[in-house]
Amino acid sequence: MKIVLAQLNFSIGDFEKNSFKIREAIRHAKKEKADLVVFSELAICGYPPLDFLEFDDFVERCKKEIAGLAKECIGIAAIVGGPSVNPGLEGKNLFNSAYFLEGGKIRNEIHKSLLPNYDVFDEYRYFEPGKNSECIELNGVKIALTICEDLWNVEDDPMYVNCPMDELTKEKPQIMINIAASPFDHTHAEKRKAILKRNALQYKIPVVYVNHVGAQTELIFDGGSLVLNDAGDVVHELKYFEEDVLSFEFPENRGSVTGETKGKQPVSKIQSIHDALTLGIRDYFQKQNFTKAILGLSGGIDSAVVLALAVETLGEKNVHAVLMPSPFSSRESVDDSLALSKNLGNSCDIIPIEPLYNEYLSSLKSQFGNLPFNVAEENIQARIRGNILMALSNKSGYIVLNTSNKSELAVGYGTLYGDMAGGLSVIGDVYKTEVYELAHYINRHKKIIPETIIAKAPSAELRPGQKDSDSLPDYNILDSLLFQYIEQRKGPAELMASEFDAALVNRVLKLVNTNEYKRSQAPPILRVSPKAFGLGRRMPIVGKYLS
Amino acid sequence: MKIVLAQLNFSIGDFEKNSFKIREAIRHAKKEKADLVVFSELAICGYPPLDFLEFDDFVERCKKEIAGLAKECIGIAAIVGGPSVNPGLEGKNLFNSAYFLEGGKIRNEIHKSLLPNYDVFDEYRYFEPGKNSECIELNGVKIALTICEDLWNVEDDPMYVNCPMDELTKEKPQIMINIAASPFDHTHAEKRKAILKRNALQYKIPVVYVNHVGAQTELIFDGGSLVLNDAGDVVHELKYFEEDVLSFEFPENRGSVTGETKGKQPVSKIQSIHDALTLGIRDYFQKQNFTKAILGLSGGIDSAVVLALAVETLGEKNVHAVLMPSPFSSRESVDDSLALSKNLGNSCDIIPIEPLYNEYLSSLKSQFGNLPFNVAEENIQARIRGNILMALSNKSGYIVLNTSNKSELAVGYGTLYGDMAGGLSVIGDVYKTEVYELAHYINRHKKIIPETIIAKAPSAELRPGQKDSDSLPDYNILDSLLFQYIEQRKGPAELMASEFDAALVNRVLKLVNTNEYKRSQAPPILRVSPKAFGLGRRMPIVGKYLS
Repeated sequence: MKIVLAQLNFSIGDFEKNSFKIREAIRHAKKEKADLVVFSELAICGYPPLDFLEFDDFVERCKKEIAGLAKECIGIAAIVGGPSVNPGLEGKNLFNSAYFLEGGKIRNEIHKSLLPNYDVFDEYRYFEPGKNSECIELNGVKIALTICEDLWNVEDDPMYVNCPMDELTKEKPQIMINIAASPFDHTHAEKRKAILKRNALQYKIPVVYVNHVGAQTELIFDGGSLVLNDAGDVVHELKYFEEDVLSFEFPENRGSVTGETKGKQPVSKIQSIHDALTLGIRDYFQKQNFTKAILGLSGGIDSAVVLALAVETLGEKNVHAVLMPSPFSSRESVDDSLALSKNLGNSCDIIPIEPLYNEYLSSLKSQFGNLPFNVAEENIQARIRGNILMALSNKSGYIVLNTSNKSELAVGYGTLYGDMAGGLSVIGDVYKTEVYELAHYINRHKKIIPETIIAKAPSAELRPGQKDSDSLPDYNILDSLLFQYIEQRKGPAELMASEFDAALVNRVLKLVNTNEYKRSQAPPILRVSPKAFGLGRRMPIVGKYLS
Repeated sequence: MKIVLAQLNFSIGDFEKNSFKIREAIRHAKKEKADLVVFSELAICGYPPLDFLEFDDFVERCKKEIAGLAKECIGIAAIVGGPSVNPGLEGKNLFNSAYFLEGGKIRNEIHKSLLPNYDVFDEYRYFEPGKNSECIELNGVKIALTICEDLWNVEDDPMYVNCPMDELTKEKPQIMINIAASPFDHTHAEKRKAILKRNALQYKIPVVYVNHVGAQTELIFDGGSLVLNDAGDVVHELKYFEEDVLSFEFPENRGSVTGETKGKQPVSKIQSIHDALTLGIRDYFQKQNFTKAILGLSGGIDSAVVLALAVETLGEKNVHAVLMPSPFSSRESVDDSLALSKNLGNSCDIIPIEPLYNEYLSSLKSQFGNLPFNVAEENIQARIRGNILMALSNKSGYIVLNTSNKSELAVGYGTLYGDMAGGLSVIGDVYKTEVYELAHYINRHKKIIPETIIAKAPSAELRPGQKDSDSLPDYNILDSLLFQYIEQRKGPAELMASEFDAALVNRVLKLVNTNEYKRSQAPPILRVSPKAFGLGRRMPIVGKYLS
């Protein structure tokens, strides 16, 4: 039996495009004399469709498209993810289903049993868990068909009380197929392989895994679809961060699936973050028909890295940098920014903000009176820059790329409506120490980001001689503490019991928690870690715990 | 048996305050010789604690506080909501529980079975559904104890496949107690009474219902706790939007619960919205120890209504209005704003933005070139105002109140980082037509908002002679269409089949969907409708459906 894994980039709610892609892949697979072609979870509508699922019109459109695709499936079978209506009187109205199309019609609808509802996932918001698992059959081969999370209950501390594969294996299937929309984080490809291997070994069955690829605003799906034999060895691995299609022969005697693994998974954490971010930028623009980006270039490492990623992704002709020096900006910041833009080939403008800054101070003279210089004057500068970038965006159709990093977002070291403005936050899930690693990675072949930008002490340059280190601990310490609090959810006692000073823990945790209001108004952040700010981290704004 | 309903205002994560309030109420009830005092859902930590529940430290703190409260319960029993740890190996780590405290210890932990996971609710994110319902017993009285949603599965199209009361009534309880954290919307008090009545009738049992009161950022809990007899009649009704405590005698022979309903529920929709918004403002400030608010006053109805609500809530000494006329502002706008501030007694400043506006145009001269006046120049003005308000906020500790209404947020008729800025959106869940109703309600006793503000045609005054009606349909039509799309989730075919023109439907739906990116960066919006922008409405930003 010849099986095709179709790892494609779908768009949420773009039915025409999604159906077209699926139809083309079916036709292509037919020509290749394949028996079965497999698409990812909720392929028909894109993942995650979120509250569009609450519109009958949306769900009906999915059904109509699936029915149309079924007609293509003569002489070939296909598995396509899509929502289906729960015909029962009780429970939620929908299932998250795998449609098994064959003989010109829908032969089976298999429903996802385990619905992830943690971090970025909200599936229990829409779907009823499938209850009656059964295998499907094609050309005499019994297939245990599951959907993404259905395979993830083999951990030692299972999150669910049932396990679909335990039921399905009673029917003695010869192969397991799992369709997924499993979002990237830099730890996930490894975890995913381990889980699939565990399934292959536990149930002694080869595994075909088809993942979604492409970015949906903040969520990045990395592809990396897999075929494993029943010893849990990876025998086929599809590309990461790209569409890919692979056909392989399943010989119908268990376990004899063979092939040669080419090890496509990016090796280093930073390389995978880099590849994820460029895909994230590309799809944000392509899926909205945007072409041009703009960003403020400060002379610091954050905006330098974002500019380099943007130029790599969109092309130097489509990226415009704006230098907006204030009275507190150093000459080096301007020089370094110009050198960087020269290296990258993007256009850039210098718009000094001193006249505007002075005009604000003059307009606010009677209100500010003799009150001392404080964060107000600092933020005015940042917000002038935000206004200028947005004005250029409004005038010429640029999308503003935000350059805040995860460390400063965490502690609120940024100006709402100023440097926190933008359509998309590129490195908002990348800690400052990782931003440096990204800079080195970007410079791996040739010096793109000038050494002076990498070497200088971080500064917001919003008051004379300001350095980040005046008000924040060393980034190595800060990032380690933030990681343990945010990603690992360690509480204050745990943190103090490890390497951190009690006063530092209290100060940093308070900063993180009291800045929830700022982050709640941040642009969407490309997610590359297991716990990013945004969709997957939901904290009370008005909350007293640790603040 | 004497039962006390303690409807209190808890703060998320403020364990000291919450425990203190509960302890005081227990002591007070003891003095009154009550047998049982009942508190609302997740009383110990406030509702909703969101991802704080993922921190062991937070959950342990809850446990510790509950253990402390149990020690108070000698000679009296108490029911207190709080999270509890799932001792099982499988399933999520926590339950949403009602602790039954008696004899100085925790006698029972009853777990919520039905976990709401729609709209603003995310309970399945944290909790495992309780499986084994059993009644508790006090002084020989069998009590069916349930938590909020547990009673909501009696509808004709039930969302859950099980029904805890069906199980509990097998034990023949004499009374049902439900502890809740049921957030306000202007339709909800009526629905809630109907559901409780349906339970009382279906199970022929008196019902004691204790709800949370108070606002948690965008969510407003309206209290209105109830006692119903087994005929489903309301015999006691606690206050709405305020803390309230009531004790009543349960005579232990089913159904004979008596009392006189005082009909405390506000009668009109607009009155309840008004009361909810003032509570929302009050708690946002009080729970964060803020006292002073600032807002921009445009001369239009939106900012007038927000100013009136703010002054009513915080006092005229604590509210500062800023008039920021541009070259396109009319003389009437300034006069009307001054008249309004005079009526309300708040301070106000006039800061003309023309010099700043001209300075922006001059700074951007080479970029703007000869390109025609467009939204860029309009937004520059709005963002100058945003910057001025934030600067005053940063200088003097004001919180910026946002004045966008739901209609303009829906269609994106507002400037990100400009008039969309602020710490709290007061009327972002109030349609424009309802804002007029609020204005009339505010003027019910005396003329606070000048008639000229109410009568004038809405305008953003960002270009000469601009009117909302130049680019938007009449608000009566627009609001009706928006209501059916947003609240009722009608698709385009349904909308066109009713009263709306096809071109209008396409245009408005496209506006709503393509402005998701703006709303994703809006301040938290006080929720007063069944479907508010924010937490409870989750839409893809990059999505092609209807856009």
